[in-house]
Amino acid sequence: MGEIPDSHPRKASLLARTKLTEAAAEGLLAESALIAHGRGEAFDYLLGEKTSESASLAIHETAARLLKAERAVISLNGNTTVLAGEQAIRAAAIIGCPVEVNIYYRTPERMEKLISALENIRLKVANQDPPVGWDDSQWPEIVNSVDILGADADGLIEGLEGPRAICSSRGIEAADAVLVPLEDGDRCEALVALGKQVLVIDLNPLSRTARMAHVTIVDEVSRAMTELCSALVEDPHVSQWDNGQALRDALAIMAQASNQIPS
Amino acid sequence: MGEIPDSHPRKASLLARTKLTEAAAEGLLAESALIAHGRGEAFDYLLGEKTSESASLAIHETAARLLKAERAVISLNGNTTVLAGEQAIRAAAIIGCPVEVNIYYRTPERMEKLISALENIRLKVANQDPPVGWDDSQWPEIVNSVDILGADADGLIEGLEGPRAICSSRGIEAADAVLVPLEDGDRCEALVALGKQVLVIDLNPLSRTARMAHVTIVDEVSRAMTELCSALVEDPHVSQWDNGQALRDALAIMAQASNQIPS
Repeated sequence: MGEIPDSHPRKASLLARTKLTEAAAEGLLAESALIAHGRGEAFDYLLGEKTSESASLAIHETAARLLKAERAVISLNGNTTVLAGEQAIRAAAIIGCPVEVNIYYRTPERMEKLISALENIRLKVANQDPPVGWDDSQWPEIVNSVDILGADADGLIEGLEGPRAICSSRGIEAADAVLVPLEDGDRCEALVALGKQVLVIDLNPLSRTARMAHVTIVDEVSRAMTELCSALVEDPHVSQWDNGQALRDALAIMAQASNQIPS
Repeated sequence: MGEIPDSHPRKASLLARTKLTEAAAEGLLAESALIAHGRGEAFDYLLGEKTSESASLAIHETAARLLKAERAVISLNGNTTVLAGEQAIRAAAIIGCPVEVNIYYRTPERMEKLISALENIRLKVANQDPPVGWDDSQWPEIVNSVDILGADADGLIEGLEGPRAICSSRGIEAADAVLVPLEDGDRCEALVALGKQVLVIDLNPLSRTARMAHVTIVDEVSRAMTELCSALVEDPHVSQWDNGQALRDALAIMAQASNQIPS
């Protein structure tokens, strides 16, 4: 794919696609990861490729719940690492929580590549500006102290079988709140059953994950994670959250796409 | 991906995904093909993964127009070859027209692999039962006489630039009606501008292709092509076709997905 001009109306979407096809070629992604991304693209297309007001509320609710949690963790798979790894490390630094690489099709090679990619991203984020109001001099240390878990693989998600149950004892197993962008339905269900706060980012408002989570952000992962980083430093408050309303809001926006065809 | 049980409600969708990831590994597909398939999966999910009555009408209209054309051709890209190559060869045999491999990211290797795959598919279809009422003894010869064009690359689609303009002089260039499943918007526009009947299969009713074509079948390509093979032998008739209505019908079905979230 050649250079995409700045003026292209769908530049962000095309850049994301390029990042993912490159990451796939480098072995960072499972074979079905590109298909999963394409599904997301379609839903995002119907959303107009922007963060809705309703999604923004969900992002602020998620920020509040992550800050209030005693042991939050941000779970990362291949697609999230590629598309929003920087924002994830930044969010983890602000919250003071670890990130955990946790992938559906677990292989030692992919785990290693993703952890190594995140270590590089962490170095990069440590050299970026801190959030407004944060001390410049302490930011690099704060970022570099973000734990990147996953390689340990010494924990289990009860209720799942096989390699998908594997997690970190210091991460997902111990967590009381988990941010899981792009999660699969089974794992989401298992995490909810374990009594954890499950906060997800999912472009499909009808997916099992979207319906099962405590808070569902129906938005593209890199946009949502960027706004999450802002929301985390805006003193957000936990509310009585109606997640069904968030899903209906997203579906209403998608349904309005039908008005685009003139009669 | 392991064996998928027959009882799985989304078996067809999962099988299609498996076929495509295998074809990608074999080098039959462009790097963005899996993402494109994922986009389709999402729209199909909203359609309930079945052929709507409205799509069925579009399939019959398409069948009628292909039969009425003087020089019809079925254009095939990687995803269509993998998902509906059998149906495409079968349809071409019934119509008595060629198929043409015509791909967006053209490389000699992929062209050769796709043509070779279609030659194998043609042998397979020649050994299958003919349509009801057709002579068993002549079917193999009819199927084996289906031309598989594309390698010649001696034609041009006026209005396009670079490798995307390349086509077969005996296929798309000469055709008065082109069935183009999963086409890109630019090529669809160029074919329409050349005065050809453009009949497309596209799961995204909002795409430029879907809006530009004369007849748009909003349906999954393997289901649509299977039904097309039936429609071709049902003596279909060309009608006054309102393609905007077909798109609105599809969007209305997708919009109703929003009723699935209980208040």
